Amino acid sequence: MRTGADLAFLRERRPLVHQITNYVVMNETANATLALGALPVMAHAVEEVEEMASVAGALVLNIGTLSRHWIEAMLLAAAAANRAGVPVVLDPVGAGATKLRTETAQRILGECEIAVVRGNAAEVATLAGREAQIRGVESIGASDSGADLARAAAAELGCVVAVTGPVDHVSNGQRVLGIANGHELLGTVSGTGCMSTAITGCFLAVAPARPLEAAAEALVAFGVAGEDAAREANGPGTFHASLYDALYNLDPATLDSRAKVQG
Amino acid sequence: MRTGADLAFLRERRPLVHQITNYVVMNETANATLALGALPVMAHAVEEVEEMASVAGALVLNIGTLSRHWIEAMLLAAAAANRAGVPVVLDPVGAGATKLRTETAQRILGECEIAVVRGNAAEVATLAGREAQIRGVESIGASDSGADLARAAAAELGCVVAVTGPVDHVSNGQRVLGIANGHELLGTVSGTGCMSTAITGCFLAVAPARPLEAAAEALVAFGVAGEDAAREANGPGTFHASLYDALYNLDPATLDSRAKVQG
Amino acid sequence: MRTGADLAFLRERRPLVHQITNYVVMNETANATLALGALPVMAHAVEEVEEMASVAGALVLNIGTLSRHWIEAMLLAAAAANRAGVPVVLDPVGAGATKLRTETAQRILGECEIAVVRGNAAEVATLAGREAQIRGVESIGASDSGADLARAAAAELGCVVAVTGPVDHVSNGQRVLGIANGHELLGTVSGTGCMSTAITGCFLAVAPARPLEAAAEALVAFGVAGEDAAREANGPGTFHASLYDALYNLDPATLDSRAKVQG
Repeated sequence: MRTGADLAFLRERRPLVHQITNYVVMNETANATLALGALPVMAHAVEEVEEMASVAGALVLNIGTLSRHWIEAMLLAAAAANRAGVPVVLDPVGAGATKLRTETAQRILGECEIAVVRGNAAEVATLAGREAQIRGVESIGASDSGADLARAAAAELGCVVAVTGPVDHVSNGQRVLGIANGHELLGTVSGTGCMSTAITGCFLAVAPARPLEAAAEALVAFGVAGEDAAREANGPGTFHASLYDALYNLDPATLDSRAKVQG
Repeated sequence: MRTGADLAFLRERRPLVHQITNYVVMNETANATLALGALPVMAHAVEEVEEMASVAGALVLNIGTLSRHWIEAMLLAAAAANRAGVPVVLDPVGAGATKLRTETAQRILGECEIAVVRGNAAEVATLAGREAQIRGVESIGASDSGADLARAAAAELGCVVAVTGPVDHVSNGQRVLGIANGHELLGTVSGTGCMSTAITGCFLAVAPARPLEAAAEALVAFGVAGEDAAREANGPGTFHASLYDALYNLDPATLDSRAKVQG
Repeated sequence: MRTGADLAFLRERRPLVHQITNYVVMNETANATLALGALPVMAHAVEEVEEMASVAGALVLNIGTLSRHWIEAMLLAAAAANRAGVPVVLDPVGAGATKLRTETAQRILGECEIAVVRGNAAEVATLAGREAQIRGVESIGASDSGADLARAAAAELGCVVAVTGPVDHVSNGQRVLGIANGHELLGTVSGTGCMSTAITGCFLAVAPARPLEAAAEALVAFGVAGEDAAREANGPGTFHASLYDALYNLDPATLDSRAKVQG
């Protein structure tokens, strides 16, 4: 892993990260992308998603607020990205909570080539056919440990899988990396999971050939930013504002020394 | 009223609050819900709203940015909530400003069982068939006092009505509670009315049999948080960030002693 | 130019600014509008946009996240605004990036009377038929200088054109005003361009007969607020929060003395 070097490269290249994401977090993921150093663009019309996705550095699909036309747009965009060799990240928000979400995530995984899935334990367990409990979009529990779940899901789904939680686990089905960066205040702000997915897209845009590392580096960078933001915070609101400051102020020179990675 | 005890219970139970709300405030109402201690979920597709609403602790409908499919989804979700015994809160944003908004609010009230309506004076006056002036979604004036309006509207609409303003009034058609908590900076941030509706849903989820009290407790809690946030603020932006901190840091042990309730 | 006097008048009148804008920035432009002192309203349903636009002080159209129904609503709203004498501002977000965006901006300009176009250099160059480079919604370069581009585009499009960047340029095809207020942190927050368009709508609502000045005054006010916010900021997140404080705290008495305007 070379989180610092990849971040420095990202800030120099400023890759375009096309995001088809949910209404709740659009501003947040755009700002996280921009604060990190990449360029976000949101576009969801079936008339333009192929054109946009094919010139992007990465495509991020997030199913947090679905409807029929958006599903169609996601499939078109992913197909265009696949044809153009643009890596695709999927955030299966709420898979397991409703049939529509579970089936849409499955359909995207079935019809498109996904580089990385980033979700919570319940969402990933649902997609891997394991037992899980979800309340709305919050994971209440999964029967497997994070490491086992990430490995099994990656093997099952045929892509890199990142399971985030108090400790994050990223696997390609063989290797499993555990990342202990982060802060509990991340769980008090809506959309921080979605932000971590957007940032996964940013790193993937500069390291498309190394999806396992890109996903892990994204979680290191985001986790370290969370640690820095927590020092400035009195609660979720000031933490949220400071999180963008911290992403913007991440220092590539010290980032690797702060990574808490095992595996 | 037992605002502190209900808040403590809410934080222990973490009820799911399903919100079909407007695009402008989705992130804000999700974050207010989460900061208070409940779990927000946004879902608006006709394919999933019934499934989501029927397992929620409360359903919040907010008509701030309507379109045809969203109206259909609101009606489906409310019917499912009604069947499942899940209480429903309605925020008639902009009723009185356009025919679409007035008629949609009336239709929801006519076809569904609503536990609490939370709006500003002009919106509520419109629905109660009284005179009102509204500019966009801002109440410019209503002919009745807040207390009279809340009581008359509650009697007319057959549910609890909360009219917010410098002093809030909540009524079930007989009793009227006046709540003087809050701060004028709340009026300088877009969506604080919508947040108070979301928080009404949170309290209703833990006290479904006491809608009058739940609505009043929500406004006490939100108002006290506004008072706390104002102490940290230099204007609307820092106030907005501090408002989530304050909701998160609300102390159940002192909350009742800070309530400014009459009636 | 009389930025201070027009701001004071705006705060007294509180004009309604109807915005049909993109999902990413709705909350942000609503809050910027409100913090400045005007009243924002978002409405996009074809069933209500004509009613809302015709009673507004200004209409703001922003094509940042398009889809078919929204384009239809924008055209209906603009026609209603034109009939009612309500000035219309267009923000051609991403024109040049996809065919849908370029053609939609052109169609709005062709079918409706637009008072002011506010965009970045690449967007404006695209609409003026000049060479431009855009990555997503970020201008990478345009062949003309800002002043030449603003003048040429205004002549070509037959309306006032504001090209924002490190220095902003506003022209009616003859006169060009250069505005050097602002701060580089504005480029690190998503939607600040969209906010400047919303604020252009606010000033236009109180000075509809002076679109060149209204557009320039809006950029002075927004730029000065950016300068103030930067003093409180540690990065994009705290800058963003402080930007609303700064808009709210803008002092009409000193605003003109802080304007850095040439031309």
